[in-house]
Amino acid sequence: MASVSYANYPPELSPQEEQYLLSNLKDWSIAHGLAVRPAPSFVQPSQDPSGVLASTAPVTLFPSLFPRSCFEQGLAIQKAYNELYAAIARDEAWLKSIVEELVDVDDFVAKLWQTHLEVKKDGYVQDLSLGLFRSDYMVHRDLSQPNPSSGLKQVEFNTIASSFGGLSSQVSALHKFLLTIDAYPKSTSSIIRDGALELSKSTSSLAKGLAAAHNAYGASRTGRPLCVLFVVQDPERNVFDQRHLEYALLEGNGVRSFRLPFGETLSHTQLDADRTLIYTPPNLSSTVYEVTTIYFRAGYSPDDYPKEEDWTARLQLEKSRAIKCPSILTHLAGCKKVQQVLATPHSPHLKRFLPDDKVASRVLETFAPIYPLDDSEAGREARKLATHPSSATKYVLKPQREGGGNNVYRKAIPPFLHKLPETQWPAYILMEMIEPPPLQNAILRNGEQQRGGVICELGVYGVCLWRDGSGDGDGKRGEILENWEAGYLLRTKGDQSEEGGVAAGFGAVDSCCLVD
Amino acid sequence: MASVSYANYPPELSPQEEQYLLSNLKDWSIAHGLAVRPAPSFVQPSQDPSGVLASTAPVTLFPSLFPRSCFEQGLAIQKAYNELYAAIARDEAWLKSIVEELVDVDDFVAKLWQTHLEVKKDGYVQDLSLGLFRSDYMVHRDLSQPNPSSGLKQVEFNTIASSFGGLSSQVSALHKFLLTIDAYPKSTSSIIRDGALELSKSTSSLAKGLAAAHNAYGASRTGRPLCVLFVVQDPERNVFDQRHLEYALLEGNGVRSFRLPFGETLSHTQLDADRTLIYTPPNLSSTVYEVTTIYFRAGYSPDDYPKEEDWTARLQLEKSRAIKCPSILTHLAGCKKVQQVLATPHSPHLKRFLPDDKVASRVLETFAPIYPLDDSEAGREARKLATHPSSATKYVLKPQREGGGNNVYRKAIPPFLHKLPETQWPAYILMEMIEPPPLQNAILRNGEQQRGGVICELGVYGVCLWRDGSGDGDGKRGEILENWEAGYLLRTKGDQSEEGGVAAGFGAVDSCCLVD
Repeated sequence: MASVSYANYPPELSPQEEQYLLSNLKDWSIAHGLAVRPAPSFVQPSQDPSGVLASTAPVTLFPSLFPRSCFEQGLAIQKAYNELYAAIARDEAWLKSIVEELVDVDDFVAKLWQTHLEVKKDGYVQDLSLGLFRSDYMVHRDLSQPNPSSGLKQVEFNTIASSFGGLSSQVSALHKFLLTIDAYPKSTSSIIRDGALELSKSTSSLAKGLAAAHNAYGASRTGRPLCVLFVVQDPERNVFDQRHLEYALLEGNGVRSFRLPFGETLSHTQLDADRTLIYTPPNLSSTVYEVTTIYFRAGYSPDDYPKEEDWTARLQLEKSRAIKCPSILTHLAGCKKVQQVLATPHSPHLKRFLPDDKVASRVLETFAPIYPLDDSEAGREARKLATHPSSATKYVLKPQREGGGNNVYRKAIPPFLHKLPETQWPAYILMEMIEPPPLQNAILRNGEQQRGGVICELGVYGVCLWRDGSGDGDGKRGEILENWEAGYLLRTKGDQSEEGGVAAGFGAVDSCCLVD
Repeated sequence: MASVSYANYPPELSPQEEQYLLSNLKDWSIAHGLAVRPAPSFVQPSQDPSGVLASTAPVTLFPSLFPRSCFEQGLAIQKAYNELYAAIARDEAWLKSIVEELVDVDDFVAKLWQTHLEVKKDGYVQDLSLGLFRSDYMVHRDLSQPNPSSGLKQVEFNTIASSFGGLSSQVSALHKFLLTIDAYPKSTSSIIRDGALELSKSTSSLAKGLAAAHNAYGASRTGRPLCVLFVVQDPERNVFDQRHLEYALLEGNGVRSFRLPFGETLSHTQLDADRTLIYTPPNLSSTVYEVTTIYFRAGYSPDDYPKEEDWTARLQLEKSRAIKCPSILTHLAGCKKVQQVLATPHSPHLKRFLPDDKVASRVLETFAPIYPLDDSEAGREARKLATHPSSATKYVLKPQREGGGNNVYRKAIPPFLHKLPETQWPAYILMEMIEPPPLQNAILRNGEQQRGGVICELGVYGVCLWRDGSGDGDGKRGEILENWEAGYLLRTKGDQSEEGGVAAGFGAVDSCCLVD
C-alpha cells in the first residue's frame, strides 16, 4: 500500500461526483434493505410510534483498502477457528478451570456457569451444538521492524449473537453496484475494480448453517410443525440484519422461524415432559411449534437479564432438546479469558484443542500477545508492563466480561489501574495493541457524512455444527458434522487518534477493496 | 362474492395477530424496498436534510378481493389495448382532429401539439416508439340488473409515466410472504391461499421493455457508450418505484441508465448534428453517453413546465434520435378526450384502429359510456344528463386535461356546471360512474392504520414497441415489434361514501386475492 494512489485513497470528490454517489447510495441501500431503524436521537419515538421509518445503515462511501494476503489469511483460517472453539466448548473440565478464575470478578460468567451446572444435574438431552461464529481481526504492522509487513491479529472471537451477517452481504453488493455505475472517479479505476471487490456470502451461508441444525434435529416425535427460534432483544434497531437471515432461511431453505423477545420467553415457550421445547406463537394460539434450533441474538449481555426470571428463561431454553446456537458452554468459550489463556506467550493450551501442529501454528500467528493480570508469572510480568507509563503505551486493557466497550488504552492504563483495588485487576486482561496501517474513508451515518482516519476490523463468519462427546473432560471426543467459512464483514470506525476525523467509536459497515 | 366469509373480509384481528402481521409487514417492506421517502408532513425536510429516511410505502394489510374472471379479462385484453394505442399514436391526422377540439380549452395539450409540429417541421428522425402503458379499471356491477354480474370498466389509459410498476411486484410478494408465515388468520385460509394470490411481474417485465427499445436502437454511429435516460421529477418521493426498474434494467438486462431531473435537461443533454441525443453525466464530465431511450417519469403535467425553457427541453428531447417512451403523439393519445371519443356510444372510431371485430368488441366491453360536453348530438344529450340533479347522480365529470384529480362526482355536477361559463364545458367529459362492489380493507399509511370501505383499481401494464408508418394520416401503416402484458397493480383507496372509513383519496398499493 505504498504507491501514491493508495496514499490518496479515497479520492476527493467534486460536488457533482459526491451528489451522484450519495444519491445512488441512499436509494440503493433502502431499496435493498441495507437499513436500520433510526436512532432515537435522529427520530424521536413519539414522531413514529408505529415504527415505519428506517434509515440507511451507517455505511462507508468507499470500500476500505485491505491487504489481499490478510483477507485470504482470515478466510482460510476460519475452519480451524471453528474447530478450535467447538473443541473448547466440548471440554467442560478445561472450561471449568477458566471459569473458576472469573467467578469472583464476573457475576455474569458465574451465572452462566451456574446455569450450565443446573442443566447438567438432570443431564443434557441434546448433544448437537451450532456455532455461528465471527472472528474479528485487524491488520497489524510490526512497527519495530524496519520494513513492516502486514498480518492479521485477532481482536476477539464471537461465539454468540455475531451480528451484521445479514447486512454485510448487502454492503459488499452496494460497493460493487457503485463501481458498476461509475460512482467512483476514474482516477481510482486501478484500485476499485471488479477483481478487488469481494462480495460477502454471509446472509445465505449463515442461513444455511441454521438450516443444517434444523435438519439435523430430525422429525418431531409427536408430529408437530418445526421451527427455528430467533431469541431477540426488543426493540432492536438492527432488525433488518436479522430479518435478512430469516428471509434467507425461509426462501433458500424452506425453514420457518419466529422471533421471540428474550424477556417473553416464559410466556410463549414451555418444556414438554421429554424436554422438547414448545413455542406457541402469540398470533396462532391454536398451533404449537417444536423448536429445533434456538438462535440467540439476545442474552449475551448482563443487560438482557434485568429480572431473576430472565435467568429462569435462559435455564429453560438450555434444558431443552432444541439445538442451541450457541450452547451455554459455547457462549462461555467466547470469554476474553479464553482468548487470553490461548494467546498468553508460550501457552500450552492451543495444542490441546488443535493437535495438528501446522493448523495450530497458523492460528497462533493471528494471536496478539495477551497477558492475565493475576498472580501467575505472566501476570506479574503484565502488571509491570501495565503500570509503567512508557511500556503501557503498547497495550490495551480489556475487561474479561463479555459485551464489548470499556476498554482502556495505552497511557490511560496506569492511572486507571492505580485507582482500582488490586483485587479487581484479574477482571482485566492486557493485550498488545494492534497497530493498523493508517487509512482514510468517509462514513454516512444518520445522514451526516464524516471523513477522516479510520480503523477497519475484518470479521470472518464461520458455521460449525458438532456433536458433543459423551463423557466429561476430554475435548477429543465428539464429532464435527459441518464446518465452513461463511463470508466476511468489514467494520470501520473513526480513528480516535486523529483529530477532526470520523468520531471515534461511530462505526459503519464496509467491504474490502483488496490490495495486492 | 356472496358467501358469508367474503362478507366478513378482511377478518378482525386479535391484538396479537395484528402485532404479528404489522411487525412482519413493516420489516419486510423496508428489507425489500417497498418504500417511499416520507411525506413532509411526516418528516420535515429540516430534520433529514440529506434524505436518508424512508418509510413503508402506503400498503394494504390484506390483499383485496377481486373477481378472477375480471382479473383475467384485464390481463388478456392488454395486448389489444397496446395495439389500439400504438395505432392511435401512429395516426397523426386523427389525433389532429381530436387535439383541435381541445386547443382552446387546454393549454397543455396545445403546447404538446405545437411541440409535435415543431419537430415535424424538420422531420422525425426516429421511427420507433416505446409504450410502457397502464390500463386502469374498476370492477363494475350493473345495478339496474336484478342479479348483477361483474365486469371490468376502464377508468383511464395511461400512456406516460405509468407508476408503481416497481412497487407492485413487491406488494404482491409481501402479501404472499404474509400468507406463508401465517400472518393471516386461519379463518381466511379458504380465501387467502396460494392459488388466489397473484404475483405481479411488472418490475422485470417493464425493465425488459426498456431493454427491448435500447437494443432496437442499435449501435452508436460514433462508438459512444449507450444508455437509457430516466427523465424524472426532483425531488421524487416515489423514487424506489423507479429505482427498482433501473436495477432490473441493469441486473436483468445489462443496460445502463441515468436519472435526469426534467428541469436540468438543457444543462446535461445536447443534440448532435444528426440529432443523436448526448447525455453528459455531471459526475463524469469526460464521458458522454448516447441516449437510446428516453423514459419519461416527468413532463406529463403542466406543473413540470414552470419555465418556458422547460418546453425548449421537451422539444430538444422530442427532436432527438432517441426512442421516446412515450413519443409526444403517444403522450397525446392518452388524453381523456381520446378515451371519450372511443367510448362515446356508437362511436365509429374503435374499428378504425382495431379492424378485427372480435378484438374490438372485447375492448368495447371494458368501456364505460363517456360523453363530450360539446355541441355534438351526444354532447347535447350529455348536457341534459349532467345538469339535471336526478340523472347526474350516475355520472362523474372529469377534466380533459391530463394529470388526474379535480373530478366532480354525481350530485355535485349540476351546481359545478352552473357556476362554469358554458364555453368552458367542453374542457370536461361526462362518464358513467362505475359501480364497484362494496369492499373493506385496512391501509397502513405514514404509520397510521385506517380500516373501512375501499375502492380498488386494477392497473394492467403493457409494453409495446412499434415502428411508425412513413406517411401521415394512415394508422394502418407501421409495424408492431414487441407487444406484451407486463403485470398488474392494484391500487386501493378509501371509499368516500363511507363515513369513518379510510380517508378518501388516500390510496395504497395492494395486490389481488382472486375470488372464483
